[in-house]
Amino acid sequence: MDPSGISTTLVRVNYSETDQMGVVYHGRYVVWLDIARTEHLREAGMAYRAVEETGYRLAVGELAIRFGQPARYDDLIRVRCWVREVASRRVTFGYAVEHAESGRLLATATTAMMSLDAAMAPARLPESVRRLLRAVPDPVRIL
Amino acid sequence: MDPSGISTTLVRVNYSETDQMGVVYHGRYVVWLDIARTEHLREAGMAYRAVEETGYRLAVGELAIRFGQPARYDDLIRVRCWVREVASRRVTFGYAVEHAESGRLLATATTAMMSLDAAMAPARLPESVRRLLRAVPDPVRIL
Amino acid sequence: MDPSGISTTLVRVNYSETDQMGVVYHGRYVVWLDIARTEHLREAGMAYRAVEETGYRLAVGELAIRFGQPARYDDLIRVRCWVREVASRRVTFGYAVEHAESGRLLATATTAMMSLDAAMAPARLPESVRRLLRAVPDPVRIL
Amino acid sequence: MDPSGISTTLVRVNYSETDQMGVVYHGRYVVWLDIARTEHLREAGMAYRAVEETGYRLAVGELAIRFGQPARYDDLIRVRCWVREVASRRVTFGYAVEHAESGRLLATATTAMMSLDAAMAPARLPESVRRLLRAVPDPVRIL
Repeated sequence: MDPSGISTTLVRVNYSETDQMGVVYHGRYVVWLDIARTEHLREAGMAYRAVEETGYRLAVGELAIRFGQPARYDDLIRVRCWVREVASRRVTFGYAVEHAESGRLLATATTAMMSLDAAMAPARLPESVRRLLRAVPDPVRIL
Repeated sequence: MDPSGISTTLVRVNYSETDQMGVVYHGRYVVWLDIARTEHLREAGMAYRAVEETGYRLAVGELAIRFGQPARYDDLIRVRCWVREVASRRVTFGYAVEHAESGRLLATATTAMMSLDAAMAPARLPESVRRLLRAVPDPVRIL
Repeated sequence: MDPSGISTTLVRVNYSETDQMGVVYHGRYVVWLDIARTEHLREAGMAYRAVEETGYRLAVGELAIRFGQPARYDDLIRVRCWVREVASRRVTFGYAVEHAESGRLLATATTAMMSLDAAMAPARLPESVRRLLRAVPDPVRIL
Repeated sequence: MDPSGISTTLVRVNYSETDQMGVVYHGRYVVWLDIARTEHLREAGMAYRAVEETGYRLAVGELAIRFGQPARYDDLIRVRCWVREVASRRVTFGYAVEHAESGRLLATATTAMMSLDAAMAPARLPESVRRLLRAVPDPVRIL
């Protein structure tokens, strides 16, 4: 993660992610956001696998994506990810999905993660997690 | 479709759709919305396959989902779908994802579809398509 | 299930299942087999969800598919499924994937399911499960 | 690719790839094979995207996977890939799916790719492609 609190993750578009329109199926972006968020947390010092083993979970409560130019087969995609807001039971992430080579912005997205305990009930974010999550200003305008 | 302009589509949760949290992975809802929208258009008299063969396309430009109670393996899911708004180059759909047996609301969603011509450039909705799309009031509050 | 021990399940091809070759991505057939197998077990009197709740599992140990003609967007697909062989710790299923309207055979497949206990260790098939699984001759030649 | 003609590709298991058994859903391995095959061809000097743009295609005609130990969330997976056999209209690939850290073998697989022309009819492998595909002995026993 760069000092500004923004992580960068690369994804190569696989054939399975394309659809018959000849571009990446829109639903696949959701998985790219998940991959980017996992790497963001890892870079922040929080392996989500280890966190989940303590019984605590972050579940997606809200998801919004705005699509611009399409991604295509074999493109290298760069997903930039950052924390937008931290509340007592919820963290919001922002994402910029970009074509790695050209830098072209393909989509922006946000996800609100809800903090859940082992019984899947809403719970306060553990202090250990909260400490690692630093909200930063959006580096791109969320579309 | 019932006379109110709301279609109903059933989906059975497959094992492949679950994740290790023991619930349906949030990204799968995007596919359920797609299935419901396709059936909605079919019931409105528009087989999307036939439309696409004319070169005209509806591409997802915006997607928003708010998740409530989780869906689980083998649950029968009911997706209600309707048109929220029709503009010259865009149609917005609303969705209520419900647990079929209990009627419990699991998620609400909206997608804005952009009208594209064969060259993937923005284009006015063909009159033949527009005629079939009747906007109705939201039957549930979009979360 | 018909008296011959062969079940029939219908699947409608969704846009998300296509790839840029304009046909269904080959990996999606694996999910169709899973859907068909689940329905086969249900018709045989065994809701796999209920079985799994007892701690017992059937995990795919081997998978083989041979592809013929492609499936296309919005096609209605019929998957016929049957039990090929029952051993003490393993059950083998056969599948014929067909174009529902034309009856054309699109693919054949087999999966060997391994019987596992709650600790994921190999285990004998419970007698209650075994009783419901009747092996029948292949209705089509497995390609 | 190492001089022995075997390529190595790394994949990190994402949450979306797990199922409620707490392991990777078996169908996801098909995508890992696809990713590994694409990288194998790239290292052999053949960007599949460029090949497909000439109208020529390699479609999966047969697929077989044998599963051993499960893969788990956040595991780093190594897929080794090689060419097993080259015929006039078909190429067969072999795969070893391994846990990268421990080296444990998780699955082996084979896929037979059929050579198709722009009209999706069987065609001889172009000489330019054939030259790049060198069959090597299996580095692991295909299970």
